[in-house]
Amino acid sequence: MDKHILKELRRILGPDSLLTSWEDRACYSYDATGQSFLPDAAAMPETAEQVAAILRLANEHRFPVIPRGAGSGVTGGALPVARGLVITFSRMNRILEIDAANMIAVVEPGLITGELQAALKKRGLMYPPDPASLKFCSIGGNAAECAGGPSAVKYGVTRDYIIGLEAVLPSGEIIKTGVRTEKGVVGYDLTRLLIGSEGTLAVFTKLILRLLPLTESKATFLLTFPDLAEATKLVAEILSAGLLPCTLEYMDRTAIAAVRDRLKQPLPDGTAALLLVEFDGSKEEVHQQAARFAKFVAEKGNCVLRQAADEQKTAELWLARRSISPAVLSLRPHKIAEDVVVPRSKIPDLVAFTERLAVELKLLILTFGHAGDGNIHVNIMLDKSDPDEHRNGLEAKERLFRFVLSLGGTLSGEHGIGITKSAFLPLEIDPASLQLMRRLKQLFDPNGILNPGKVFPKFSASSC
Amino acid sequence: MDKHILKELRRILGPDSLLTSWEDRACYSYDATGQSFLPDAAAMPETAEQVAAILRLANEHRFPVIPRGAGSGVTGGALPVARGLVITFSRMNRILEIDAANMIAVVEPGLITGELQAALKKRGLMYPPDPASLKFCSIGGNAAECAGGPSAVKYGVTRDYIIGLEAVLPSGEIIKTGVRTEKGVVGYDLTRLLIGSEGTLAVFTKLILRLLPLTESKATFLLTFPDLAEATKLVAEILSAGLLPCTLEYMDRTAIAAVRDRLKQPLPDGTAALLLVEFDGSKEEVHQQAARFAKFVAEKGNCVLRQAADEQKTAELWLARRSISPAVLSLRPHKIAEDVVVPRSKIPDLVAFTERLAVELKLLILTFGHAGDGNIHVNIMLDKSDPDEHRNGLEAKERLFRFVLSLGGTLSGEHGIGITKSAFLPLEIDPASLQLMRRLKQLFDPNGILNPGKVFPKFSASSC
Repeated sequence: MDKHILKELRRILGPDSLLTSWEDRACYSYDATGQSFLPDAAAMPETAEQVAAILRLANEHRFPVIPRGAGSGVTGGALPVARGLVITFSRMNRILEIDAANMIAVVEPGLITGELQAALKKRGLMYPPDPASLKFCSIGGNAAECAGGPSAVKYGVTRDYIIGLEAVLPSGEIIKTGVRTEKGVVGYDLTRLLIGSEGTLAVFTKLILRLLPLTESKATFLLTFPDLAEATKLVAEILSAGLLPCTLEYMDRTAIAAVRDRLKQPLPDGTAALLLVEFDGSKEEVHQQAARFAKFVAEKGNCVLRQAADEQKTAELWLARRSISPAVLSLRPHKIAEDVVVPRSKIPDLVAFTERLAVELKLLILTFGHAGDGNIHVNIMLDKSDPDEHRNGLEAKERLFRFVLSLGGTLSGEHGIGITKSAFLPLEIDPASLQLMRRLKQLFDPNGILNPGKVFPKFSASSC
Repeated sequence: MDKHILKELRRILGPDSLLTSWEDRACYSYDATGQSFLPDAAAMPETAEQVAAILRLANEHRFPVIPRGAGSGVTGGALPVARGLVITFSRMNRILEIDAANMIAVVEPGLITGELQAALKKRGLMYPPDPASLKFCSIGGNAAECAGGPSAVKYGVTRDYIIGLEAVLPSGEIIKTGVRTEKGVVGYDLTRLLIGSEGTLAVFTKLILRLLPLTESKATFLLTFPDLAEATKLVAEILSAGLLPCTLEYMDRTAIAAVRDRLKQPLPDGTAALLLVEFDGSKEEVHQQAARFAKFVAEKGNCVLRQAADEQKTAELWLARRSISPAVLSLRPHKIAEDVVVPRSKIPDLVAFTERLAVELKLLILTFGHAGDGNIHVNIMLDKSDPDEHRNGLEAKERLFRFVLSLGGTLSGEHGIGITKSAFLPLEIDPASLQLMRRLKQLFDPNGILNPGKVFPKFSASSC
């Protein structure tokens, strides 16, 4: 990036808001994929107008601009794969408004999701999406990837709670999309076109969120199974019975082993799988749902049912659940982590398939995640320094994807495509749709300056 | 439309599937706006391939193609304002699949929404969106306009239940969008870009719906108020208190008067407004919510609370509610019917404004509708043959729109823009967004063959 551009950027941002040292750039080079690409610089804008000026400059000089949330993404959406300028939103992280009467909040993209939730809780309100990374991920990144989380089984995902945006187009124009009301059907749905577009179509500078009243009470259950298939079979049955948990999470034997030391209470001997099930609502509702659930499990489930006695025990269970992703790296040095989705009734087929795959390809593969909505996290563990294991891992990934699609599933439920799945996009998206998506990208960003190399199958970096 | 084209259309469709007589064309000339435009012909395709062939032919010969649901739209989305060929889906109206285990249905666009709901009910399932026209509107039309209904306050609108589409692009290419799973974030969200695009971007040939378990029980309340402001003020308070009704409908004095003869039980003297409030869920849940609600109303509401004793009484209340739109025409021969949305807490301001407007412009204006989500139906009654009244009606409409936007609201919650609001689109949508929407239309439909004259402000037919 030449000196003239850096000077212009300093003029736009002010002297202290452009980072160019190696150390600073290194901080914006990585994400949770473990891959790293050094940007030319990183900008810390404070206003939408500064973002707009950056994008105009980028079009003039054709340098890449990469919007970055908190770097917790697992598909490479925030990686500066073609160098350029990273935009970080650490100085655009405010809650601008909480309108309690209308259950609406207006926030900046750099706001940490967990901080938003804590602030809302004090006001008796709730923003449901709860990615495992909620303590450090940002709401802008959540919107870019359309993040989910355990509560999605009852409450839906990020797209269900973002009703309007202020966004800067690659041209530098600032647009306002959507509404600040519960309903709205005026013009094309730009809001939802931008959500999940992984920072390739526009840069978010403001988000309008719909909120819910805070639920009063919660009951948390742990179900342990001597047999994996019994656990996965029960998932669709729970929901078909009209029970509506706000959490319906699953862990296989290996996931349990990885976080066992975080569970103070020992699990029954021979536990092959567990379900973590929660109900929320008013005290009476929770009491009734919990009673119905216990009765249902007594009749249907070949398992041991335990209810968390208090908040501490509940927190312990959640700590274990949220620790799986980092903890599995104690098993093998690397992982290929996929968040495939299948129709709920097909979860047993998916899990059986991954077990066969593990044996055949001599790999450690574990499965866990949001069983309630069929969104299973498959972690293929490996040591990349072993060429056979690396090759087998990549083969396992492709065979997993093909199998998931054969079940009527999808390659990603909440992580997005980024760079780690872009080569596989044509497996799921038909040629005419893919062509249409490319033309949409071209329409928004004719010079290809915004987050280049993402989503579409052309970037050829390491694909895991 | 010249003979060569008609001959080609007959070849594509078969001899009995192209209607060209004046009588037949007249059947496809109108919708619920009361406006009428005669098409050149109407096609009754049975397959997506036939739709694709029609669109290819239309591009070759540059004739307009207008996809039509059941003609129940109130903003002119299905009107052939530039003549051309109407496509009707009366022969593509099947339920292709109900996957009860995964709570998914696959249907064709011509399916009547109420028929889908009845079929699902037998399977213990539910598709929540419930436009007042549900007995005759079609699911394809619902998707094109992103229809809502009373249940939206708890369950959301059409876009929240359509997770995938088969659609034909104006080019004649058939695409598949979305997923058949609860979650999915692969590629740009074409599904939601197409939903609510009012038949201007693509023609739907298949819809994948997510379903819910059928709720077991319901409790219905009628609240009558001696004062309008008391009714509207209570709306936001009900929801802020954490009560979550599946219906929170409101009617003012004039709306009540229009449907009074459908209510067998007389209302208290001096009733100035009413709320229709329902709770659904398991028997216990409904019982508890009903008890909480009754307590809440006793403390907060300046009103008379009555619970519908049985299903017949409930049906009577609903018949009255669903009859408002047709019934008001007994008051004056014409109406300008708008479905504006405001933040819930602003409903009292909106209603007070319409009352002032009515006095000032000497018009009968009534308000009713989905108060729970701020989506108020404002009906400006008039006799168009009286030029003063007509002019005042149009002035009232524009002043209403400007006031709604000043409250942070939107011009339409569920009816769309069509032709009746297109002139007002720039009041709500900023120039850069509007330009972007025009370019999206151009990208999808470079020859402008698909539903021309809709959404964008250029068609100059009567704007009410």
